[in-house]
Amino acid sequence: MALLQRRVIGLVQRMLASSGGGCGAPSREEEHAVAPVTANGGGGGAALREAKLKRGTVSVEEDAGRSPAAGATPLLFTAIFVSVALNVALAHLLHRYAPSHPAASPDQQRDTCVQPGTSRGGEHGAAAPVGELKYRSASAPSTGKPAVTPDSVINLDHGDPTMFEAFWRETGDAAEIVIPGWQTMSYFSDVSNVCWFLEPGFDQQVRRLHRTVGNAAVDGYHVLVGTGSTQLFMAALYALSPPNAGEPMSVVSTAPYYSSYPAVTDFLRSGLFRWGGDANSFEGESYIELVCSPNNPDGAIREAALSSDAGKAVHDLAYYWPQYTPITRRADHDIMLFTVSKSTGHAGTRIGWALVKDREVARRMTKFVELNTIGVSKDSQLRAAKVLKAVSDGYDVDNEEDDEYSSSGARRHRLFDFGRRKMVERWSMLRAAAAASGIFSLPEETTGHCNFGDETAANNPAFAWLRCDREDVEDCAGFLRGHKILTRCGSQFGADRRYVRVSMLDRDDAFDFFVRRLASLK
Amino acid sequence: MALLQRRVIGLVQRMLASSGGGCGAPSREEEHAVAPVTANGGGGGAALREAKLKRGTVSVEEDAGRSPAAGATPLLFTAIFVSVALNVALAHLLHRYAPSHPAASPDQQRDTCVQPGTSRGGEHGAAAPVGELKYRSASAPSTGKPAVTPDSVINLDHGDPTMFEAFWRETGDAAEIVIPGWQTMSYFSDVSNVCWFLEPGFDQQVRRLHRTVGNAAVDGYHVLVGTGSTQLFMAALYALSPPNAGEPMSVVSTAPYYSSYPAVTDFLRSGLFRWGGDANSFEGESYIELVCSPNNPDGAIREAALSSDAGKAVHDLAYYWPQYTPITRRADHDIMLFTVSKSTGHAGTRIGWALVKDREVARRMTKFVELNTIGVSKDSQLRAAKVLKAVSDGYDVDNEEDDEYSSSGARRHRLFDFGRRKMVERWSMLRAAAAASGIFSLPEETTGHCNFGDETAANNPAFAWLRCDREDVEDCAGFLRGHKILTRCGSQFGADRRYVRVSMLDRDDAFDFFVRRLASLK
Repeated sequence: MALLQRRVIGLVQRMLASSGGGCGAPSREEEHAVAPVTANGGGGGAALREAKLKRGTVSVEEDAGRSPAAGATPLLFTAIFVSVALNVALAHLLHRYAPSHPAASPDQQRDTCVQPGTSRGGEHGAAAPVGELKYRSASAPSTGKPAVTPDSVINLDHGDPTMFEAFWRETGDAAEIVIPGWQTMSYFSDVSNVCWFLEPGFDQQVRRLHRTVGNAAVDGYHVLVGTGSTQLFMAALYALSPPNAGEPMSVVSTAPYYSSYPAVTDFLRSGLFRWGGDANSFEGESYIELVCSPNNPDGAIREAALSSDAGKAVHDLAYYWPQYTPITRRADHDIMLFTVSKSTGHAGTRIGWALVKDREVARRMTKFVELNTIGVSKDSQLRAAKVLKAVSDGYDVDNEEDDEYSSSGARRHRLFDFGRRKMVERWSMLRAAAAASGIFSLPEETTGHCNFGDETAANNPAFAWLRCDREDVEDCAGFLRGHKILTRCGSQFGADRRYVRVSMLDRDDAFDFFVRRLASLK
Repeated sequence: MALLQRRVIGLVQRMLASSGGGCGAPSREEEHAVAPVTANGGGGGAALREAKLKRGTVSVEEDAGRSPAAGATPLLFTAIFVSVALNVALAHLLHRYAPSHPAASPDQQRDTCVQPGTSRGGEHGAAAPVGELKYRSASAPSTGKPAVTPDSVINLDHGDPTMFEAFWRETGDAAEIVIPGWQTMSYFSDVSNVCWFLEPGFDQQVRRLHRTVGNAAVDGYHVLVGTGSTQLFMAALYALSPPNAGEPMSVVSTAPYYSSYPAVTDFLRSGLFRWGGDANSFEGESYIELVCSPNNPDGAIREAALSSDAGKAVHDLAYYWPQYTPITRRADHDIMLFTVSKSTGHAGTRIGWALVKDREVARRMTKFVELNTIGVSKDSQLRAAKVLKAVSDGYDVDNEEDDEYSSSGARRHRLFDFGRRKMVERWSMLRAAAAASGIFSLPEETTGHCNFGDETAANNPAFAWLRCDREDVEDCAGFLRGHKILTRCGSQFGADRRYVRVSMLDRDDAFDFFVRRLASLK
């Protein structure tokens, strides 16, 4: 009942807001505009303030929705208000008389709010993010890392993509799913598919999104699902390593390479494959080269460094999305890996996918996932499908003049616009902070023509590959840790310890504290 | 809006039903009664019919609910009917005037039904189970293996636990979850827990269910979550194998052993551990012994066969639940593995858990899952928590005389009663069919005192370990395949090819066709 009431009230609020007009939403062009980089200008502190001010002017959260189809009638309003009143009265009556269900549904739990900081989190407690009500129930869903304060340790070691939460809060129920108790209980999703545990709806939405964005070819490819792209990375190693070779296959990647590549390749000491280090110093014919582009940790656009008939490449395209980089071509490699963690920010769902050309490779990768985990969570596949659908729907333009709104009058929620705006703004803030400090350097900004937005766009990587230039600091991660900033040391990426990798995808408050602290370091 | 309407209508229907009284529900004692085993009686066909008839008399589906707290007032009914009418009218109005969301929610999809057999499933199409409406949308959730017909191939190779769907359809929204788009996006669930990706609500419900059932100790144990228990089995091997030993650790289990044990142990050719075969023929001091009890494939109650200071045991207790076996003691081994696949039937969620005594072992197992998949789907953890809660709620007796109903008057849904009733009935049917055929034998039935039900109960394994006694049949799986019954060959379990493992957990129609065919084989 509570859900009913809230939905009706929500509808009323939305209709009231839409009928009132509201401030003009930023045009798509404004949203896409790249903020001028002020890092090298005089007075870094001022530049930082300016960059933060800039964020305020383009914030999607402050944009009151408007609708061209706002012609609500008085009859409708009257009906809604009567219904709301009646529902409230009914809730009381039913609470007294009706047989209640033993299990309170999450809907019901969502109505009860408590003070933040009561969870069993770490030192500071897992306080709720700003604007977020927490649940009273001890079985409330988790909210991620504890909230930060000006004195907190700021953990930017992992690429935890909580920056995207703000976007998904704006989308209402477009990405919400309901799973009844009896649904998808079987191991099997589609016995006719080489990937028999793949939900057909997820397959469909993956293909649709790639067609919408134009970042990867899907026709003639098998879609495989994994528990995150890490599982599919292992699956690719398994599939590409000959089962009866005397020696393990060498797995290589150009340094700096993603720190998980050596760790995941070697932790079980497989006789099928082993880590071979930097691709540029590899000598041999047989190998698996991991090509991450844009590259984790430094955002560089990469091509395979090696070429040989006996060599194979796996393309990790986790960051090849418009919020991070211009989409310059439709990638069509043999094996391409993606993940919702970085494309939509849903790291907690642990859903990745692979586009695979060769059927036998797809079959062996599927076999890996079968032996490793007997398939992949169907709940998360269904959720990921709904999320990807919401992203595609935001760009599914039906040839109207004002494509800010769909044909039904709803304002479109556009993930890549939000993401690009945030990344442009954060990189501007970071460059300003580095300039204010004077002891850090960052990779040069590069630009390219983005086919998706049909405009020139900058590369705004999901991680900052930060170098500490101070002579006496040889361990940048240790230096920053001394200032309560946790980052990942360059040595884990096959690079110098003067480098660190810093996540650019945390929540606003954590990112703000980070740049403020960074600017103060001399 | 459709959801609102349905909920109100559902409430009205429930209240009408409860006020009308209804037929008496079977007592708990009747539900638990073990059907007499008629396998050796004369006229196997008659015994089979009798066993099937018996099912009809105890079917929970035919039991109309009743409620002692059914004192609804006329005022309430009037209010409800006015509200329903108003909601229907509102739905029409809103459909015309309000800005609609681009993505239809699963709630909405659930209202539209289509003819079965339209999916992209196998030869026969994935037709809906009896009584089930299918979705129109191409992105509808999957329904598992295609429906069967009298001429179908019946696939009982996997232990696909779709038998439990019927139970969960009865539970209404007690096990339903709603996941908004912005929820649990982070990698982290609880940074203060050794298993940092474990949802606190899942931890809580796991402990509660074990306390309710009494099958395993939880105090002083770490709860770890995995992508199914298979991932946690690998995690245990990783955690228990010394990282710097010269030789891989031997992994052993008494034959017949679960076919996945050798396959999962060896598929990556790890240098840390390797399959060592039957525990009874193992010679050495260092080993990891896998103790599955009740055992997959033969249902036997097992203890560790080996004992040594340098040896470790992993107890796979996937089937140690009241529907399969009497709960004779509270297990308190060092590492115990469980899974929702077999306890509640939710194989598609891929959620398993481990109870681990030693903190360092728990830490290393967690590290495995971190390297393998960077955690476990939070969506499925939340769903599993809700499902386990619904199970515990069914048995959370509050000292009332009639414990068929909770204090609020709702009839309790009792998973283990349902499961035991089904298993007793199926084993009775299977034994009758084997007797009718005359060429198959099955393990003897054993009984014990079940502390959970406080009564004598039989062992009713999740798999039948079937032996073909016909002299000329050396490959029982091949023989059955010739009759369109797919089973798993005994050789995969380290046993004779005259044996096969047959799943006892499929849907009613598939099981019925199976026993009918089996009875006809001479």
